[in-house]
Amino acid sequence: MAPLMPYPPPTAIDKYLPPSQHTGKLFLTLTYATSLDSHLSIPLTKVPLSGPETKSLTHHLRTFHDAILIGVGTVVVDDPGLNSRLPGTPLTRQPRPVILDPAFRWKVTRESRVVQTAERGEGLAPYVFVRSEVEVEGDERKRILEEVGGKVVVIETSGKKKWSWHVLSEKMKELDLHSVMVEGGGGVINDLLAEGNLPLVDSVIITIAPTYLGQGGVNVSPRAVTSVADGKRISAVKFTNVEWRILGRDAVMFAQPDL
Amino acid sequence: MAPLMPYPPPTAIDKYLPPSQHTGKLFLTLTYATSLDSHLSIPLTKVPLSGPETKSLTHHLRTFHDAILIGVGTVVVDDPGLNSRLPGTPLTRQPRPVILDPAFRWKVTRESRVVQTAERGEGLAPYVFVRSEVEVEGDERKRILEEVGGKVVVIETSGKKKWSWHVLSEKMKELDLHSVMVEGGGGVINDLLAEGNLPLVDSVIITIAPTYLGQGGVNVSPRAVTSVADGKRISAVKFTNVEWRILGRDAVMFAQPDL
Repeated sequence: MAPLMPYPPPTAIDKYLPPSQHTGKLFLTLTYATSLDSHLSIPLTKVPLSGPETKSLTHHLRTFHDAILIGVGTVVVDDPGLNSRLPGTPLTRQPRPVILDPAFRWKVTRESRVVQTAERGEGLAPYVFVRSEVEVEGDERKRILEEVGGKVVVIETSGKKKWSWHVLSEKMKELDLHSVMVEGGGGVINDLLAEGNLPLVDSVIITIAPTYLGQGGVNVSPRAVTSVADGKRISAVKFTNVEWRILGRDAVMFAQPDL
Repeated sequence: MAPLMPYPPPTAIDKYLPPSQHTGKLFLTLTYATSLDSHLSIPLTKVPLSGPETKSLTHHLRTFHDAILIGVGTVVVDDPGLNSRLPGTPLTRQPRPVILDPAFRWKVTRESRVVQTAERGEGLAPYVFVRSEVEVEGDERKRILEEVGGKVVVIETSGKKKWSWHVLSEKMKELDLHSVMVEGGGGVINDLLAEGNLPLVDSVIITIAPTYLGQGGVNVSPRAVTSVADGKRISAVKFTNVEWRILGRDAVMFAQPDL
């Protein structure tokens, strides 16, 4: 793995980071890197996208959040460490990995990278969020997670197929997680950019890499939104307090949703 | 229409502009503005995308090119002026509008904005490129174009449905157009970003506006490309000499295709 580069303290990006005191609301930062054609990746292929500078930024941002949240699809494909690999990060600044896995399909083992990372004391053990319909008692995977300090967290879905981001958000606060960096994958990001969920998003930090991945990539594009007044389509998501930074070959947009 | 803002001379972007002496090759600059989700627009709806600073940049860039090329779809939807509206631009620095209209479906009239612009001496009259199968003799629209100094240019397609960019490129040089700024729409852009045509592209200048238009927009994303070696997908287009500029709320990428 490429070494992480030092990154200056983000004094100038303070307003996009969680406040130092809890406000009672979960602070949600949406962070990801896309190609120029808004793809996160190409299915079944590893194509390097963002550069070392923006990767370092991501690891830096992680130290400001209580949790990193990621969908199970990305965990299965990438087997990520889900910690901050910034040199010298103390365990107290490591974020809690939260894995959204409604049907508990993640085949976590002692060899999973996030488990190994927790065992080595280089990160926290993951919390796996599953739907209340899933039977977890006696599951070997539950034991593996608990042995390193993680757990399976059952989310009440009231019989609905999809859980609500409002419910997830409340559950995180119960778990003493007051800020979360949502990093992917496509389904999770598009869901949070959708009209009803957008008010839960406090900050958006998007890296754009100077590459076209091409048609058929894992795409970020929120559901279409139409105006109540005339039924015509309008921008799905607008942003306010927009600031761009150039880091290496990438452009990074810091912004807040304009609700 | 919003007034155009002054823009400093692009000394720092010289290398992305046509050379002052013709090289024998048509210099092709691909320029457009997209949303974060790589959409040029929402069908049938006018949604403002790029800001006044990047619009000024576009009008500035136009004065460095012999021609602006645009597909007929965009002409029909936008009725554009296709000139540089930068204050004080002499007619000698105005680009020639080239409209790609294989089936000659553009219903050009004396009221079309590009015709009016040419009549007022604020821009050049358009050349409309049509396929050789189209009957143009005696067409009223041909007369309208010719009256203001424009013309219909017949492109040999040898019976093929699509014309070749190599043939278009040769035709432009015959017409003493040695540099061209290709501005859209989606079909034209995706076609030039496709594997076989990319070597014709010299510079790419892409404005990214801090907005998601949402699913179903007019999208820029080139055809997928797979590696000859292992049949796996790779980045469809990579770039070299990448430089970003922040202009107002937009980020602008200047680059050259990495072939």
